Amino acid sequence: MAPQRKAQQLGIRDEVAALKRSRTIAAAVELFYEKGYENTTLDAVAERLGVTKPFIYAHFSSKGELLAEICSRGIASSLEAMDSVLPLKASPTEKLRVLGERFVRAVLTSQMHIAIFSREEKNLAVADFNRINDMRRDFDRKLTALLREGIEAGEFHVSDAHMAALAIGGMVSWAYVWYRPDGRLSLDEVVDRMALLILDMVNADTGKG
Amino acid sequence: MAPQRKAQQLGIRDEVAALKRSRTIAAAVELFYEKGYENTTLDAVAERLGVTKPFIYAHFSSKGELLAEICSRGIASSLEAMDSVLPLKASPTEKLRVLGERFVRAVLTSQMHIAIFSREEKNLAVADFNRINDMRRDFDRKLTALLREGIEAGEFHVSDAHMAALAIGGMVSWAYVWYRPDGRLSLDEVVDRMALLILDMVNADTGKG
Repeated sequence: MAPQRKAQQLGIRDEVAALKRSRTIAAAVELFYEKGYENTTLDAVAERLGVTKPFIYAHFSSKGELLAEICSRGIASSLEAMDSVLPLKASPTEKLRVLGERFVRAVLTSQMHIAIFSREEKNLAVADFNRINDMRRDFDRKLTALLREGIEAGEFHVSDAHMAALAIGGMVSWAYVWYRPDGRLSLDEVVDRMALLILDMVNADTGKG
Repeated sequence: MAPQRKAQQLGIRDEVAALKRSRTIAAAVELFYEKGYENTTLDAVAERLGVTKPFIYAHFSSKGELLAEICSRGIASSLEAMDSVLPLKASPTEKLRVLGERFVRAVLTSQMHIAIFSREEKNLAVADFNRINDMRRDFDRKLTALLREGIEAGEFHVSDAHMAALAIGGMVSWAYVWYRPDGRLSLDEVVDRMALLILDMVNADTGKG
């Protein structure tokens, strides 16, 4: 078999595996959200997918692993947003604006995952719970550092960068509670307006006067 | 019996009833928080209090009524803060500052109640869930109106008052997730700093330049 051919086949196999994983997660999100984690069996997840339980076990060792995957989605996406923004060659103000947009989008497209995390955190294995909390702390640390960078550059004016980071994290994370995909504003509008409110909170000079 | 004597006795009876209710709620908060609502019986609440179940039934008709009382605490205290501030003869900036302080304090002193609400909202009776949601909407409406008042007075500068109200509600409500009573800052310090961040978010002129 030519190396190229092999790589291509592996690529397809990986894609199929990723697709199966993501479909399994989507079905579990629906059921955990509707019925709760404790009232949902892996059989029910398999049934919703129209497959048998071994299909699921090929990708997840347990219901608990599925829960951990779902509960970490919101903060994992938020950290991805953070890590995509920090290396940008841009001013702290511009970085914070882009981060705000990507962070809000990450939260609003993980709305059900975050709701499940809020409800089911007690059902997480201790190691998973700690890992997710470490990710949250990592996010807060990186956001605090970005705010300090802006303060030192004279672009942001806040007296307590860490508290401001927690406040920004909260105003965005809480959006999972009130956001409605069919609401008054489109996703893009909510993203833009929340990002501006973040810049306002740190008193960034956005040229609004 | 002299009317005065009767009033005094009724006063004591009311106080005793209020004390029993609040002790029952406190025990239920502990147990719902530790073990979850579904894993807690009224017998366990009675045991924690060192009383028998009829003691509890004298004040709550069911476990569901206890849950509703606990879940509504955070928003009820926040609405009390709102309603105590709106009639003040003060500028919108001063009202928002005082509201921020009282709202943050209301949330941080209802931390476990809010955590239980986030986890257990699915276990609320529909009528209780709707009543709590109506209180939240009432809070958002009143906060939006206060922000509009400040915008019209030229004191606040925000383009979308409703979105800013949701952002403020979120940054404060989410504090139940990260606040630790034994943390870096005292309750009073967190209250002061969060209140200032709220004023920053609406670009209030707080004399900081």
